[in-house]
Amino acid sequence: MSQARKPNPARRSERSRRAVLDAARALVSEVGYAKVSIEAIASRAGVGKQTIYRWWPSKGAVIFDSFLELSRGEDGVRLPDTGDLEADLKTVMRATVAEFADPVFEAPVRALNLEIVADPALADAYREKLAGPVDEAKKERLRSAQRAGQLAADADLDLVLEVLYAPLHQRWLHRSGPLTPEYADALVEITLRAFAP
Amino acid sequence: MSQARKPNPARRSERSRRAVLDAARALVSEVGYAKVSIEAIASRAGVGKQTIYRWWPSKGAVIFDSFLELSRGEDGVRLPDTGDLEADLKTVMRATVAEFADPVFEAPVRALNLEIVADPALADAYREKLAGPVDEAKKERLRSAQRAGQLAADADLDLVLEVLYAPLHQRWLHRSGPLTPEYADALVEITLRAFAP
Repeated sequence: MSQARKPNPARRSERSRRAVLDAARALVSEVGYAKVSIEAIASRAGVGKQTIYRWWPSKGAVIFDSFLELSRGEDGVRLPDTGDLEADLKTVMRATVAEFADPVFEAPVRALNLEIVADPALADAYREKLAGPVDEAKKERLRSAQRAGQLAADADLDLVLEVLYAPLHQRWLHRSGPLTPEYADALVEITLRAFAP
Repeated sequence: MSQARKPNPARRSERSRRAVLDAARALVSEVGYAKVSIEAIASRAGVGKQTIYRWWPSKGAVIFDSFLELSRGEDGVRLPDTGDLEADLKTVMRATVAEFADPVFEAPVRALNLEIVADPALADAYREKLAGPVDEAKKERLRSAQRAGQLAADADLDLVLEVLYAPLHQRWLHRSGPLTPEYADALVEITLRAFAP
């Protein structure tokens, strides 16, 4: 995992690291995953190729890190836990829906999605490096809700996440309906009803 | 709609019509929507270009008809209605899951999906010509269930269909989990619980 190769905390390194991640995401959006090269990322970010290789082992690692960055807060991927599952999920889903409705965010994610759908090996890497850690953070919040008796103790958490996120994902991917805060709330309410204790 | 240009019922015409639709679907799978031409479809199907133009107004129309054919039974798109919503949906969803698990079926659908995700105009045409009529047939079955008191009378039927189908669609698209009869049943049970009267 690239986490083991994080840059040192000096401010200049952090600026370079962010420039590299922004460049990687922008290039995937513009030319597609297959055509992005380490050279192009370095050139766009204004850093040397060696700077990239010092922090990331491969092109795949830097691109996945650039997308992981989108889902990551100050202290990593973590969902809010105020003790109120419905309120917390609505906070998260409203933010997620807003991101998918934002052209700046959605263009690179759409480009990456196309690559993943067409390429099973990339889909595996995506699951391992990106979707996996994010899903694990979500499940951690759901387990807390199960302990609090707010979610069926025997609920299949993979299925809970699918019911919560897949409708949004499909609506966004096929542009088949509006992406609104009300839609975010409806998905949370439906999911909690489906998996009520 | 291409339905208005159906071939005459003579057996030879029906054979040609099927050959054209099979060729269209195969070519989308092999070379992608953008590169399929009427010429290539005609050549693959062993008919003249004029035969195709007699029945369909455009390349888009013949390709969408070729996919609509996959969802269409003897008497058009219609869901079973035995009076038992859960049993009927499980019949339909088990068949749908089996189709998505079948490489012969899933390859052209995956190819078309990629085109739709990348091309908003094609997504609109897809919704109007293909997803729209199929969804309407599904909603007809759900309305019957609402009248029978088996589904909440105020349920948003677009949302019901999303909760029922989007998890399967995402799992198939990202190859993120097994596509089994048990999964089909679980989606039906979850959806009925979420939208219970």
